[in-house]
Amino acid sequence: MIVGLGTGRTARRGIIALGDRVRQEKLSITCVPTSDRAEALACEHGLSVVDFATTEKVDYLFDGADEVDAKLRMLKGAGGAVTRERMVAWASEHCVYMVQDRKVAENLGTNATLSIAVMAFGLASIRAELHRCGLTGVVRRTMDGELFVTDNGNLILDMRLEPDVNVEEIADLLNSIPGVIDHGLFLEEADELLIESDDGSVRKLERT
Amino acid sequence: MIVGLGTGRTARRGIIALGDRVRQEKLSITCVPTSDRAEALACEHGLSVVDFATTEKVDYLFDGADEVDAKLRMLKGAGGAVTRERMVAWASEHCVYMVQDRKVAENLGTNATLSIAVMAFGLASIRAELHRCGLTGVVRRTMDGELFVTDNGNLILDMRLEPDVNVEEIADLLNSIPGVIDHGLFLEEADELLIESDDGSVRKLERT
Repeated sequence: MIVGLGTGRTARRGIIALGDRVRQEKLSITCVPTSDRAEALACEHGLSVVDFATTEKVDYLFDGADEVDAKLRMLKGAGGAVTRERMVAWASEHCVYMVQDRKVAENLGTNATLSIAVMAFGLASIRAELHRCGLTGVVRRTMDGELFVTDNGNLILDMRLEPDVNVEEIADLLNSIPGVIDHGLFLEEADELLIESDDGSVRKLERT
Repeated sequence: MIVGLGTGRTARRGIIALGDRVRQEKLSITCVPTSDRAEALACEHGLSVVDFATTEKVDYLFDGADEVDAKLRMLKGAGGAVTRERMVAWASEHCVYMVQDRKVAENLGTNATLSIAVMAFGLASIRAELHRCGLTGVVRRTMDGELFVTDNGNLILDMRLEPDVNVEEIADLLNSIPGVIDHGLFLEEADELLIESDDGSVRKLERT
């Protein structure tokens, strides 16, 4: 069995729990991490790791999200490296995401922004088109005020999502713009959503 | 007027010709180059250049292509840097492409391959999906046998296009795969196609 490992605080807890289970139950699984951090943590907890670049199919993905709604739609990408997570999700048979219940919102964009990775070359033209379509926001900067540049040399736009927008239309728009590398809307990736309350209880939403 | 400058042999001739006209007719135009090479050539020929990253709209784009068909569909990307050309085309009011008439084919793929830029992280899963969809080919390598890596750190797949494939479906498939950065199918970009014969005469095809 090949298990995809997400990146972030919730995924971190999943990796540690998986390490415990593998050790206790002597499970035979191989992991594909979505980041160097996830890889280091998996190795530290005794998990066997392979490179996703040589992996055709993943059986199961466990990851977190920044905001979710009741239709299992998610906002991700506050971390800035969503593309790897989307690639592993796309290659995964079954994708499970876990969030704290304060991350559940009626509308995506209530407490999180829509992050969009763009090639710097297209910054002005892409931003102008997004503005025409009602999407406004800022280019992400570092604490020092410099432009934030991703590992792949791209810039990040952090856009406000109005409560009444159609997120499917926005995802289609973003997917159609050359130079938009990826974005935080994960609308169809989740097969299963685990929502954890403060008391530790977990309720499950499944895609129907 | 803002003019986009493509990259490649035909675009090169266009840049030189444009430089001559601007000088002779004292035209007031500004150029956005799609590559460092195009920029250097434009400056050398006296053209005024601005960075596309600060440009919202382009009036006119002149570029070349590797192969075209009678429906103004094109294959580009033998050079490996199609994304910039597609971004400028997308922001341009009117896109003109010029090719030698030996580059006109009944089916795209007759003499050129379909180049696909993919993130190395997703290589195996993307290649497996393309194979399932009937697209086979090789990962581009340098003369030394090393993997060819683009400026943005991506790999290039060079795929064979069978004569009977539906190129619109292939473009949609490629656009839907996370980790596919861009590809050589330019199906709707050309508003005007200039086809030059060996005797120097030029015929024009326009999108209807």
